[in-house]
Amino acid sequence: MPSIGYLGPRGTFTQEALEANLTGDFDRLVPYPTVPEVLLAVQDGDVDNGMVPIENSIEGSVNATLDTLAFETNILIEMEVVFPVRLCLVARKGVSAEDVSGVISHPHATAQCRRFLREGFPEAPVTAANSTAEAARTVSKSDEPLAAIATELAADIYGLEVIERDVEDHPHNVTRFVVVGKEHTPRTGTDKTSIICFIKENRPGSLLEILQEFASHGINLTRIESRPTRKVLGEYYFFIDIEGHKDDEGVSTAIENLEGKLRELKLLGSYPAATTP
Amino acid sequence: MPSIGYLGPRGTFTQEALEANLTGDFDRLVPYPTVPEVLLAVQDGDVDNGMVPIENSIEGSVNATLDTLAFETNILIEMEVVFPVRLCLVARKGVSAEDVSGVISHPHATAQCRRFLREGFPEAPVTAANSTAEAARTVSKSDEPLAAIATELAADIYGLEVIERDVEDHPHNVTRFVVVGKEHTPRTGTDKTSIICFIKENRPGSLLEILQEFASHGINLTRIESRPTRKVLGEYYFFIDIEGHKDDEGVSTAIENLEGKLRELKLLGSYPAATTP
Repeated sequence: MPSIGYLGPRGTFTQEALEANLTGDFDRLVPYPTVPEVLLAVQDGDVDNGMVPIENSIEGSVNATLDTLAFETNILIEMEVVFPVRLCLVARKGVSAEDVSGVISHPHATAQCRRFLREGFPEAPVTAANSTAEAARTVSKSDEPLAAIATELAADIYGLEVIERDVEDHPHNVTRFVVVGKEHTPRTGTDKTSIICFIKENRPGSLLEILQEFASHGINLTRIESRPTRKVLGEYYFFIDIEGHKDDEGVSTAIENLEGKLRELKLLGSYPAATTP
Repeated sequence: MPSIGYLGPRGTFTQEALEANLTGDFDRLVPYPTVPEVLLAVQDGDVDNGMVPIENSIEGSVNATLDTLAFETNILIEMEVVFPVRLCLVARKGVSAEDVSGVISHPHATAQCRRFLREGFPEAPVTAANSTAEAARTVSKSDEPLAAIATELAADIYGLEVIERDVEDHPHNVTRFVVVGKEHTPRTGTDKTSIICFIKENRPGSLLEILQEFASHGINLTRIESRPTRKVLGEYYFFIDIEGHKDDEGVSTAIENLEGKLRELKLLGSYPAATTP
């Protein structure tokens, strides 16, 4: 059975989503500390597949995922998984909300719980950690009555108890993950295709041309994201998701036409569209 | 003289950019701990103006700035400032690179210096802080030979010395800041206009329609960014910068036409285009 790398350490949302959606498909789950390291491990053949977050419904794109797929690897998206984000306030056994002397989490997670923290813990200092899982581990090793904002899985792993569930300020918080690898996924009839467009020069009309090409073939865009090319401020590449499979007639013609107009079109693969939970 | 709020604490890049570009224009500089707090302070009249980062040439958009301007405030961009990001490795006096037992910074800053840290400090644990300025302050108060990745200004403020300058992995790293307020800025002839487009429903052709409207008036887009509407995954609003002033004939006609097609068009103001340093 194959192996899969994921954004770790143990107890992250990625591990939670992986275990909930792909249990039994892999016999070896390997945590990596950063998104680029997961993707490069797939590229280098250290693992067969990789799973990383690509988009959150509140925070937007995961830039490290887009930029690594654009600039550093040559791998394919084989599958997408949409999974709800449920942040919990967790602490050592016996520590109750009134006892909490400080809160630890990744700055993104604390940002998503700003209202909860302001109303429930206005006096508690908020300390940063490199991940929600690291925050849970720090809390488990401290003698102070600290709390972490982390996943329920992290609470399990580090022997902590959940003080409160769903502490994020926005209730409909879901994250989209992608499973990457080196295989093209066959057509199912309800597919999506991801492409990256590097335009020839920073011509103002280039994006319009791309959209017109898809529109003229009746192809719907489900997402478009501009990202800096890292060369000069104001120069972007476009990360685009469209409906359809690369082997569909309209999609393959549109991609062929665009290849002639762009500096580079990087096809990241076609895969079944996830149904939102 | 008026007052200006900025993304603090003291010693951040925003303060560095503010002091380098707007010295003497304000008699009171007020640090706020987060971007939304700066923007809301302007909205509420606690300060006359505010300065926050909006875009970095490597990391892309500052989401908190876009989302707060879109959803929480009704204020205008009066000016933009482009300023180079120069991260430094800083430590207490007498601590040299060989002594460093650990490095502290904001996760974004450490991410921008990954190669530098891996090559120069492969064994040093990297601890997270809520800002580069907080990292500098922590280093200044510690008895350990710690180092922070922070601004040169933060080193000055907290009595630290610069061990090494320009430690970021990408050399051409600049950040664009905006100065916000409640006044419309008059036309200069080399202006930009920022607008936010909320589309009527998640219609695939909406973005194409917006781009066509500008193209038909010969208006160049300098930037387009899609951001989640925070309702359901896959629904976006568009943050668009165009060349020209809202009082220019083509721009005002295009905006008027789009207002009829969109659910909402939020005009964030026209302001002189910054020259990249």
